[in-house]
Amino acid sequence: MDIKQYMEQVGKQARVASRAMARADSAQRNRALTLIADAIEREADALRAANKLDLDAAAANGLAPAMLDRLALSDSAIATMVEGLRQIVALPDPIGEISGMKFRPSGIQVGQMRVPLGVIGIIYEARPNVTVDAAGLCIKSGNATILRGGSEAINCNRALAKLVKEGLAGAGLPGDGVQVVDTTDRAAVGALITMPQYVDVIVPRGGKGLIARLMEESTVPMIKHLDGICHVYIDAKADPQKALDIAFNAKCHRYGTCNTMETLLVSRAIAPTVLPELAKLYAAKQVELRADAEAHKILEGYPHLAHATEEDWATEYLAAILAVRVVDGLDQAIDHINTWSSKHTESIVTEDYTDAMRFLREVDSASVMVNASTRFADGFEYGLGAEIGISNDKLHARGPVGLEGLTSLKYVVFGHGEVRK
Amino acid sequence: MDIKQYMEQVGKQARVASRAMARADSAQRNRALTLIADAIEREADALRAANKLDLDAAAANGLAPAMLDRLALSDSAIATMVEGLRQIVALPDPIGEISGMKFRPSGIQVGQMRVPLGVIGIIYEARPNVTVDAAGLCIKSGNATILRGGSEAINCNRALAKLVKEGLAGAGLPGDGVQVVDTTDRAAVGALITMPQYVDVIVPRGGKGLIARLMEESTVPMIKHLDGICHVYIDAKADPQKALDIAFNAKCHRYGTCNTMETLLVSRAIAPTVLPELAKLYAAKQVELRADAEAHKILEGYPHLAHATEEDWATEYLAAILAVRVVDGLDQAIDHINTWSSKHTESIVTEDYTDAMRFLREVDSASVMVNASTRFADGFEYGLGAEIGISNDKLHARGPVGLEGLTSLKYVVFGHGEVRK
Repeated sequence: MDIKQYMEQVGKQARVASRAMARADSAQRNRALTLIADAIEREADALRAANKLDLDAAAANGLAPAMLDRLALSDSAIATMVEGLRQIVALPDPIGEISGMKFRPSGIQVGQMRVPLGVIGIIYEARPNVTVDAAGLCIKSGNATILRGGSEAINCNRALAKLVKEGLAGAGLPGDGVQVVDTTDRAAVGALITMPQYVDVIVPRGGKGLIARLMEESTVPMIKHLDGICHVYIDAKADPQKALDIAFNAKCHRYGTCNTMETLLVSRAIAPTVLPELAKLYAAKQVELRADAEAHKILEGYPHLAHATEEDWATEYLAAILAVRVVDGLDQAIDHINTWSSKHTESIVTEDYTDAMRFLREVDSASVMVNASTRFADGFEYGLGAEIGISNDKLHARGPVGLEGLTSLKYVVFGHGEVRK
Repeated sequence: MDIKQYMEQVGKQARVASRAMARADSAQRNRALTLIADAIEREADALRAANKLDLDAAAANGLAPAMLDRLALSDSAIATMVEGLRQIVALPDPIGEISGMKFRPSGIQVGQMRVPLGVIGIIYEARPNVTVDAAGLCIKSGNATILRGGSEAINCNRALAKLVKEGLAGAGLPGDGVQVVDTTDRAAVGALITMPQYVDVIVPRGGKGLIARLMEESTVPMIKHLDGICHVYIDAKADPQKALDIAFNAKCHRYGTCNTMETLLVSRAIAPTVLPELAKLYAAKQVELRADAEAHKILEGYPHLAHATEEDWATEYLAAILAVRVVDGLDQAIDHINTWSSKHTESIVTEDYTDAMRFLREVDSASVMVNASTRFADGFEYGLGAEIGISNDKLHARGPVGLEGLTSLKYVVFGHGEVRK
């Protein structure tokens, strides 16, 4: 069977299974999740053995140590997967909620019901934990799932798929409710993202290269996150201590995350006061500062100082590097952000009410904050309970995406025999 | 300038204007809508003169009478446009609403703010009224708009565009907040649907042919409506009078609308009672019935009877034709609908609580109803106040789309200097 036919069959099976997944009640879906968690604990040895096959092959193929690290299924990685599933069980069921039922002049009563999207395709790299996380969230939200993990993890993913299927069966759900694509052929990805008749949404979890490629080719809608060029703007009326705390934390708490600040904007009125103090904090972490002419003058003598070019405004460093620009005030800050930001997360530090309100309203990003570190832009910090991904898009889900992002609202009408006049 | 360059410029101008449109307060946006309504009333003669140029050209080109009819700007069409704008003014402002602000353990307070999508592209056929309706809804929801109407209406659309621009300017809003594409070259559509950097969503309003073409080529997300193959299922436990009323109204109230019933499913237990009675009603309207073998037997002698083939289950007649099938019961009805429906609107007629609840939960369509005519699936009937279109999709907006469908939710964080630990 060729790849296209194989994927067609996977898609058909997913569509059929999605109906039973959507019909299942809360207890049944939670039962499946618990059985899967139990099975992973019980079969930890077998999982490690499968993972070893992957690790040996990857090492023989010369995979980079960082990649090998992500591929490895350690004891603690297994424990985290199990714990993650048990946490998903404890979340409230997003499915079936009926809201807003209102009577209309015609006599009908109209509202909305939250329902699963149907079939979710997840495309990710060689990280076996994503297989379990993603399957868990999709089962909880009543969706069928097609998982396409990195080919380096194929043995481990097969072993996990077997346990997931057993868990589904044990709860009376179809085994095809979660399917792991059982081929390492890259054409499978191309097929998966061009089957809108079988797949309702694609959630890619991976680096920029993967996402950019999928964007080019996908005919299925995506919940996707491309990059995070996040800004902090220190307003003229900022509390200096809050400014130091937030600008330091937003850059230095972790360098490699998408909600890390990449550009700092400072109002001219406060720059001479706050930038030198901030530089002392960054110096301890050896953060390179790429400053515009005005900031460069103020920061003169800082050991890791460079001149910013326009390219810096458009760069996600994911490293101990920060672009710094002095601006006239709020208008120029908003203009800079709306021009250069990746529309992920931006924060203003200010004690001025009107500036705070204008920033929240006028900055066109998924998360806008006052007096808080951009590092809070995260499904767990926002109270979503779990996160399937982060969306830079404006349609459907925007920002951190929890279980609700895997659902849609359909209209429900309670009638009493009404007809249209 | 070639079309691609021209559209690029239109897109850039829209993106710039979208920021001012999003910043404008409710009073300013309503002021613009009122000024446009006033101007259309005042300039009715000029509009009719422009429309006459279009009508003469169209008649010379041999446009079909039905098309000429839609193109014509009668006195009552002008009055309806003006009244529509005044109704939009009276709707509540969807923009800026902040909801769900909750404190998190970290100390930050998190919720969501409703904001415009940005730039909306509307592609429609030669109906000048859509120019004003769509512009009105986009202005109300704080979006910039690019309107691409049918080339037959170009003179009238140009005249309307001038009045819209004057209204925007009179309210202190940018004239580029609404742009009418000023060329009849079809390449303009191709450019518009492939500029995701400038256009956030495309709303096509037109026939299936237009939509199908756009689906092939668009790289911008669409809020689209393809077809309406709607079902009524008469359950074994149906109230016979409600069944007759609803099945007659859903088919015969209007034949050409997307929420008209195209297939009737009847439970075997009630078919011999209800189908002959129903046939009497349909006979008065000369509705052709395309029946499966079992229904055909019951309907024997009906003057407009034919045998249904599988193709009938997949056909949107938009005419006085109805497919009829006898099913075992609820399970087979749901299965038929989930297989053949265009996922628009389906209704069950029943007095049985469990069957009603199962139908609502398990039928995967944008609108699911109990004991009501499918003809109620409509933005006005649902209380949305206005309708920009209907969506068959599951992501973002589903079913009738009102002003909210032209908005998105961004996360808002109120902090007090919090940083991530």
